[in-house]
Amino acid sequence: MSVVFGGVEAGGTKVVCAVGVGPDGVLDRTTIPTTEPGETLERIIGYFLAQRAAGHDIAALGVASFGPLDLREGRITTTPKPGWGGTDLVGELRRGLGVPIALDTDVNGAAYGEHRWGAGRGRGTVVYVTVGTGIGGGAIVDGRPLHGLLHPEMGHLHVRRHPDDDFAGTCPFHGDCIEGLASGPAIERRAGRPARDLGPLLARTVTIEAHYLAQLMTSIIYLLMPHRIVVGGGVLNIPGLLDAVRDATAARLGKALDAVPATARMDEYIVPPDLGQFSGVLGALGLAEHEYQRSLTNR
Amino acid sequence: MSVVFGGVEAGGTKVVCAVGVGPDGVLDRTTIPTTEPGETLERIIGYFLAQRAAGHDIAALGVASFGPLDLREGRITTTPKPGWGGTDLVGELRRGLGVPIALDTDVNGAAYGEHRWGAGRGRGTVVYVTVGTGIGGGAIVDGRPLHGLLHPEMGHLHVRRHPDDDFAGTCPFHGDCIEGLASGPAIERRAGRPARDLGPLLARTVTIEAHYLAQLMTSIIYLLMPHRIVVGGGVLNIPGLLDAVRDATAARLGKALDAVPATARMDEYIVPPDLGQFSGVLGALGLAEHEYQRSLTNR
Repeated sequence: MSVVFGGVEAGGTKVVCAVGVGPDGVLDRTTIPTTEPGETLERIIGYFLAQRAAGHDIAALGVASFGPLDLREGRITTTPKPGWGGTDLVGELRRGLGVPIALDTDVNGAAYGEHRWGAGRGRGTVVYVTVGTGIGGGAIVDGRPLHGLLHPEMGHLHVRRHPDDDFAGTCPFHGDCIEGLASGPAIERRAGRPARDLGPLLARTVTIEAHYLAQLMTSIIYLLMPHRIVVGGGVLNIPGLLDAVRDATAARLGKALDAVPATARMDEYIVPPDLGQFSGVLGALGLAEHEYQRSLTNR
Repeated sequence: MSVVFGGVEAGGTKVVCAVGVGPDGVLDRTTIPTTEPGETLERIIGYFLAQRAAGHDIAALGVASFGPLDLREGRITTTPKPGWGGTDLVGELRRGLGVPIALDTDVNGAAYGEHRWGAGRGRGTVVYVTVGTGIGGGAIVDGRPLHGLLHPEMGHLHVRRHPDDDFAGTCPFHGDCIEGLASGPAIERRAGRPARDLGPLLARTVTIEAHYLAQLMTSIIYLLMPHRIVVGGGVLNIPGLLDAVRDATAARLGKALDAVPATARMDEYIVPPDLGQFSGVLGALGLAEHEYQRSLTNR
């Protein structure tokens, strides 16, 4: 029986679980709705126990979760998601499954997946940004997810306002940080209509959105100087937005990084995920493998 | 004869050279004016050759230099400093001294020095920011200087303007990026008087400066989430500025990081360098030791 891993991407509305060893070795996958924590964790544990009963010897579990997280304690901290504050993710899953558990943020998980198997493969430092219900970013530096005092919280970055934009913003903490101005809900509230049906407001939305996302891109470049930035999330489905972000980023950099040839090719520098919607759960499989190797070393 | 290292901090006006193994083991130190590259490099090489003749067996040299740098090629790239563009720092020094050379930015060198021996000791991720003639930042992540496509270029970060500030900014690339608005020369041009003698403009300068530097701090926090930020450079000698930056940073974070206790103590989170003006040259000694160990492994 060969060793396989379990991956969990825990999002605000659904949890994706997979069993396998990477994108070409997924043995099984399922989706569970995110309800209250007790029920949701029970279903996750039940799924992996059933997989084990079916012969898949899961040696470790990787969890890429919404947050904020206390990575040392293995818990969710103060999430706005009702009932989930303080949830002991690692403790509950370890008790249920009895294997080593790796926990990281959803975006660090996706960054790891893209770095290992996707659009960031072979690149030293890779940043993954998601623009959807919220805005977040994760980073892989020298092959490892970036942590510090906490994990990155890129969605709170303050940005310069577009001169034609007087929308107050949706962030409960800051109002008009980048998540407050450029997330999916912000786009919809500003436009007064769904992001997938902007109609006559499409051009204006793309201009304003690119103005904000380009500031996230340049801030990431100046502070982290990644080899590649992978941008996912539903908002990037707005037609023309990705190219507008690339153009606005190049314009904002100006000649400051002319000595860095890669930044001259924004279409190769700021790219969509290769693993599509599975960056996170595949990254979680990779983090599980990493944790398994570490558990062998520390035995 | 025990092994010692050479450290070089190359700045725009002067070069500090040291021989030793760390802050408590500096055997000799000198300062050389930064003139044109040929002459300056010759004097650096001459100094270390004389040290070797005096019995100090320098096993490797660390160089923390102004830039921008091409770290793979070991060169300065497109510096505004006349004559220095394209200078092959690593090649020239290796030819002159015949030892392994480690090159990094001045701020990554200072970050390494503070991380290893100073205000960042024992902290996983440490950022060093300097605010002086220019603004720059370096970072140590998991014990190693942060690189990617290039080194960080934090001085170009775009910031939100203070509502009472209409100064155009001094950056040749962007005008009003943070270096253009908050460096020493920007302060002096805005005030029309020297930064060390602001007189009646002191309070206003501190308010505006703190507004900008707090945005650099929060951007660093949201993107890199360091365990500690060390802030050096001459501008921080302006009375009251460091505390104003701490207060403005806390106000700007708001409740977003309430789950992170360390950020509640800004006086312990944003701190001056422990190694004073020697963070850079001591960091260079540390980088030399690192390079020496690597050269032994790769033999």
